[in-house]
Amino acid sequence: MHLPNGFLAAGVPCGIKSDPTKLDLALFVSDRPATAAGVFTQNQVVGAPVKVSRSRVPSTTARAVVLNSGCSNACTGQRGIDDAEWMTAAVAEQLGCQPEDVLVCSTGIIGHYLPRQKLAEGIPVVSKQVTATDAGFLAAAQAMMTTDTVPKQAVRTLELGGKTVTISGACKGAAMIAPNMATMLAVVMTDVRLIPETAQMLLSNAVGTSFNCISVDQHTSTSDTVLLLANGATGITIGDTAMQEFQQALSEVCQELSQKIIRDAEGAEHFVTVDVLGCRSYDEAYRMAKSVCDSPLVKTAVAGNDPNWGRIVSAAGYAGVPFREEECSLTISGLEVYHAGAPTNFDADAVSAAMKTGEVHFELRFTHGNENCRCWTCDLTAEYVRLNADYST
Amino acid sequence: MHLPNGFLAAGVPCGIKSDPTKLDLALFVSDRPATAAGVFTQNQVVGAPVKVSRSRVPSTTARAVVLNSGCSNACTGQRGIDDAEWMTAAVAEQLGCQPEDVLVCSTGIIGHYLPRQKLAEGIPVVSKQVTATDAGFLAAAQAMMTTDTVPKQAVRTLELGGKTVTISGACKGAAMIAPNMATMLAVVMTDVRLIPETAQMLLSNAVGTSFNCISVDQHTSTSDTVLLLANGATGITIGDTAMQEFQQALSEVCQELSQKIIRDAEGAEHFVTVDVLGCRSYDEAYRMAKSVCDSPLVKTAVAGNDPNWGRIVSAAGYAGVPFREEECSLTISGLEVYHAGAPTNFDADAVSAAMKTGEVHFELRFTHGNENCRCWTCDLTAEYVRLNADYST
Repeated sequence: MHLPNGFLAAGVPCGIKSDPTKLDLALFVSDRPATAAGVFTQNQVVGAPVKVSRSRVPSTTARAVVLNSGCSNACTGQRGIDDAEWMTAAVAEQLGCQPEDVLVCSTGIIGHYLPRQKLAEGIPVVSKQVTATDAGFLAAAQAMMTTDTVPKQAVRTLELGGKTVTISGACKGAAMIAPNMATMLAVVMTDVRLIPETAQMLLSNAVGTSFNCISVDQHTSTSDTVLLLANGATGITIGDTAMQEFQQALSEVCQELSQKIIRDAEGAEHFVTVDVLGCRSYDEAYRMAKSVCDSPLVKTAVAGNDPNWGRIVSAAGYAGVPFREEECSLTISGLEVYHAGAPTNFDADAVSAAMKTGEVHFELRFTHGNENCRCWTCDLTAEYVRLNADYST
Repeated sequence: MHLPNGFLAAGVPCGIKSDPTKLDLALFVSDRPATAAGVFTQNQVVGAPVKVSRSRVPSTTARAVVLNSGCSNACTGQRGIDDAEWMTAAVAEQLGCQPEDVLVCSTGIIGHYLPRQKLAEGIPVVSKQVTATDAGFLAAAQAMMTTDTVPKQAVRTLELGGKTVTISGACKGAAMIAPNMATMLAVVMTDVRLIPETAQMLLSNAVGTSFNCISVDQHTSTSDTVLLLANGATGITIGDTAMQEFQQALSEVCQELSQKIIRDAEGAEHFVTVDVLGCRSYDEAYRMAKSVCDSPLVKTAVAGNDPNWGRIVSAAGYAGVPFREEECSLTISGLEVYHAGAPTNFDADAVSAAMKTGEVHFELRFTHGNENCRCWTCDLTAEYVRLNADYST
């Protein structure tokens, strides 16, 4: 997993996490000003780093993203905003740029203040260690981790204009016990040139079919952030040409990252793909897919390899999308269990056996139109509850 | 717990549940035509009994409600509707009334057909056993149970016009592993006279502040039904006079029943009252209270007696109601943990100790207005997951 041209990264331990040997401070740097775009949580309550970063994109002069794990700096009032701004200024001082050119993300427990002294010591260290190597990229991905069990990276390359351009991303989170309501942070970097409006559009499209299509526990975080930096180091500009090709690759990077989040969801033992097909609109398909992905009763049934299909159909039924039962059919991992509003005479043991593989596929098919949506979720296990029952204490 | 004047009830085992000794067929009868009103699930997918009963209220000629547990008769197509109508006809034959004067509710696994032969044997038995005694009322409440551990009844009496009028109700469900997505069924009977429009209004009001204010796992059932029968046996008519007094008593019956559902939620160890105060509208207060009640992360924190208040504030934050953080404060069981958008310096051990009593109170206070909402929920425990992971298999 490598960085695009002109990007450097590092991750160091700076003592925010209780285990002082754990990496908890990450820095991504572009060696030249980059276009930056962002997609942020829709929660009314947002962490101070979201407020600060949100105000600084879109931009054409971004130089770095600094991230810490172990403390989300959310619900911390004006002091939290001061701390987040101070953190970017400390990085800017090291890089010789403006504080406004530094973006910031934090993840961890809500309602605690950032330990400034520890960051004051850690920021110069991480700033000196940034490197273009795979090891630097990996260390940064590791420093973003909270309850994640593996670092999460994805890379795609494209041949454009005779050059190889790269899109590299790292993310953390949505492990079910992720520090604060499954906070998801992602940084995606590329060495093409993008104008801010294009960057924002491409990123929003990619997030719409990736990070917005996963659900661990439906609890929208105060800190969710996806950032895209494009520094143009290859000299290639994505304009009208290659737009579709680049969008495809960027979406693939975001989908790979988001699926890695689901596969690492703590306590989870099943990876579930939910296809809702044949709808009047994407929005209707999305709402029903999301409703299925969010249902604790669907997720516990998956945990038990239980083909309790009534829970799936009825979860679609309370999504607020009008339909008649005879317009709906359902397959579980290829086996039809419900056809046009009535149960089939399916082999429950065969469906349960298919679920036991750990890869489960629901296909809800409607007769309304041609719009489809695919979302991903995981099962809800007793282990999830145990892990979440005493996170803060 | 007694029935109102003119009502009879019974519960018998008829073999729908796998354990042949368990009561699974309940019958409530009015000895004269009664006004009937109903409130039904909002799911797009509704059980056949809901379709049949919904088409028969409001009514002034209702004579009985027949209920079975062990099979919900939902997602069963036209055959399911035929079965539900047949079931009411079988009761009508016993009572000497019209099938349209019998209402029906079923709860249990989705997608299975009703066992007509067993019901054909059980319906004459239960019809002969109906009695005005407390034992009959209790047996009917027991026959409605699925994974409920206790029968749920509530009674209020009022002195009106020199007579004692009674409101008696029985309900089942919302035990977390209730047979199908926490199906909730309730039958409320009273011996006053009500016109259908008044009965519907009073019932809708009562449900709005009781059954609609509880959440076990947010999964709207295909079968949820609350029925009100008013047979006028006392000769007292509720019109403009005593309306408020009667509404209050009816709402209390519904609230007591709905709270019993939460207290019996399987796997649950905490009873949680959520007050959202100071809102612009009841709807905004309700949406935030519901969002808190539905959050798995809030509910797992309660299971662990963990005062992880950021989860509560942020659950309100994604309810779709606009607010600024400084307009929001939060107390947990009387101890303020968040004040005007910033954390207080609270004693986490004291809050955790208060939560360990099993009775938890969240008070989210906004500075927007004077509208309030109270909802109830329970915690999410590992036991819930275990019970739900293999319900159907």
